[in-house]
Amino acid sequence: MTNYNFSAGPGVLPTPVLTKIKNEFIKNEFTHMSIIEISHRSTQFEEIINSAEERLRDLMNISDDYGVAFIQGGGSTQFEMLPLNFANNKNRIAVLDSGNFASKAAQAAVNIGKQATILDSSKMDHYHHLPMLSTDFNADEYDYLHLTTNNTIEGATYHQSILPKTAGRLTADMSSNILAEPYDVNDFDAIFAGAQKNLGPAGVTVAIVKKDWLKEQSIENVGSMLRYQNYLDKHSMYNTPPVFSIYALNLVLEWVQEQGGVDSMYAQNIEKSSKLYDYLDNSTFYHALVDESARSLTNVVFTTADLERDQAIAKDATKEGLFNLSGHRSVGGFRASLYNAQPIEAVDALITFLKKAENNYK
Amino acid sequence: MTNYNFSAGPGVLPTPVLTKIKNEFIKNEFTHMSIIEISHRSTQFEEIINSAEERLRDLMNISDDYGVAFIQGGGSTQFEMLPLNFANNKNRIAVLDSGNFASKAAQAAVNIGKQATILDSSKMDHYHHLPMLSTDFNADEYDYLHLTTNNTIEGATYHQSILPKTAGRLTADMSSNILAEPYDVNDFDAIFAGAQKNLGPAGVTVAIVKKDWLKEQSIENVGSMLRYQNYLDKHSMYNTPPVFSIYALNLVLEWVQEQGGVDSMYAQNIEKSSKLYDYLDNSTFYHALVDESARSLTNVVFTTADLERDQAIAKDATKEGLFNLSGHRSVGGFRASLYNAQPIEAVDALITFLKKAENNYK
Repeated sequence: MTNYNFSAGPGVLPTPVLTKIKNEFIKNEFTHMSIIEISHRSTQFEEIINSAEERLRDLMNISDDYGVAFIQGGGSTQFEMLPLNFANNKNRIAVLDSGNFASKAAQAAVNIGKQATILDSSKMDHYHHLPMLSTDFNADEYDYLHLTTNNTIEGATYHQSILPKTAGRLTADMSSNILAEPYDVNDFDAIFAGAQKNLGPAGVTVAIVKKDWLKEQSIENVGSMLRYQNYLDKHSMYNTPPVFSIYALNLVLEWVQEQGGVDSMYAQNIEKSSKLYDYLDNSTFYHALVDESARSLTNVVFTTADLERDQAIAKDATKEGLFNLSGHRSVGGFRASLYNAQPIEAVDALITFLKKAENNYK
Repeated sequence: MTNYNFSAGPGVLPTPVLTKIKNEFIKNEFTHMSIIEISHRSTQFEEIINSAEERLRDLMNISDDYGVAFIQGGGSTQFEMLPLNFANNKNRIAVLDSGNFASKAAQAAVNIGKQATILDSSKMDHYHHLPMLSTDFNADEYDYLHLTTNNTIEGATYHQSILPKTAGRLTADMSSNILAEPYDVNDFDAIFAGAQKNLGPAGVTVAIVKKDWLKEQSIENVGSMLRYQNYLDKHSMYNTPPVFSIYALNLVLEWVQEQGGVDSMYAQNIEKSSKLYDYLDNSTFYHALVDESARSLTNVVFTTADLERDQAIAKDATKEGLFNLSGHRSVGGFRASLYNAQPIEAVDALITFLKKAENNYK
């Protein structure tokens, strides 16, 4: 029986990457030491971190106008770093509350002493549609607009085609759909993504920051570890970076390149998610919850409209090697995460199982 | 030829731990997925992080008066978190400037808007002796005294027997000698250590914090990711923790327990370092630099008093499988790091090599 891991993150990673890490983990005649024993100041690690940056720039077409940083602390630290670094003029940010993590980003800005205005929220609709900018939005009142491109828990996505247009600065949390579908980096002033969903193991977060915007800032009483400029100046090595996570991230990026890059991943992700959404839409037993135009390619959220039954079915699924299908503990139901490393066979196995479960529970 | 890694960190880790990580890295019938693919909310990871905390409490005799947190961002983030969390009354900390990292801790406090007073410094002496508290030190003027127990770069250590005695609060950076020699945790109000020297891979930092001290604090405009209380309340899982680093840390702690705990490590570290210091003291070619009473067990710093010659010898050493013997780039010379995982055979091989180098270069 093949097992499939539908976890929303940390989640499935490419098997060739796992095999490579295992095979080269112990010191040998070339490396002399394991990857977790090497100095971050070694030539070997310098090549790894430089390669990771180059690959990411290649995959996302990131121009020299942007700096790339590898930072610890996950998305939650980015929720704090963004306003600390960029909310220095109006001391106020605008947020489209499209889900739990957008809401957290607003709260984080408030926690560090800034103001956050929720422009629109789809919370009353359980985040099943996307909040949008009203025509009278005045970007001048805010330092930037914060967006969550993909809402990992609720399953709605601002795809590139439906990105809100602002005359001001735009920042995006791409944690759960970076490299899963194409975005034009030039539409954003800062982007970040925790690695553990689509890029690699937990422990490193990628930040892509527009250099000229950063240069404009006057930042006071903020420590070195929370200043993007410091990461750019020191090539993410102001202090010891998370060596293993960056090493594994580099291997995942290499794998994405070998697969044909983001366009190829996008085509596969459309195929995988469409297959599942089509099945759900044609079923009377299961219901995909999110507005069709905003459906996530990476986190497919659905339910039988009976949360207890959902739980029982997700439990049955583990017996058939289909793991982590339960929705986030805050919403229940099902969530099938179909990140880049998820093979189409996982979707096929899931659909086969869901049909069987329907017969058993209907 | 056996290779030995004398890196100051990330550095040598126990071979049985490396082997175990390699052997269980790929998903199998029990785990279903690799350690870097598992959810941090899984039972499997909960057991790992709980086990890591329990082992650390066991090894260091940490009482329930203290909370234990696993935090990202390394020691440099702790330099910021300590004053953000604890310098709220006088807004001023006291520092004994015993080396580069003590000095950085003082600067970090200033960067976030607090005051830092350097009580005494051994900088003029290249940090070859330890600065001490003067008899007229008034602890009431400061929120706490910051100490670096082991100075990784310069090689001087405040051993438990020569710890400064303060009537006030005491915090310690134990990054490079935690678990290498015994300390009485009850003498401190907060302790932290980046894992990558003596505990595991880079990417996680351990913090041990006195709960009642934390409860006294009124902390404003500090984000969730920089509040110790948040880590204690959420068992270090406010957001996704660095799963792999904590997993490997737990294995290293298990290994230390199997070796007989800190007392056993201490005995071995005395044996290893004494062997090397004795050789250096009996040599007219090499010179150990640090005051005898303050010599580090984990970072043995020495020189031939000719920095170019030192460099040439360190380069020769790599040809014989002895890696990373160069001193920190800020000081030059040699530094042999003898962390817990360093076998005595490494010291023997080093001494044999040093004798040969003396003949070649004298």
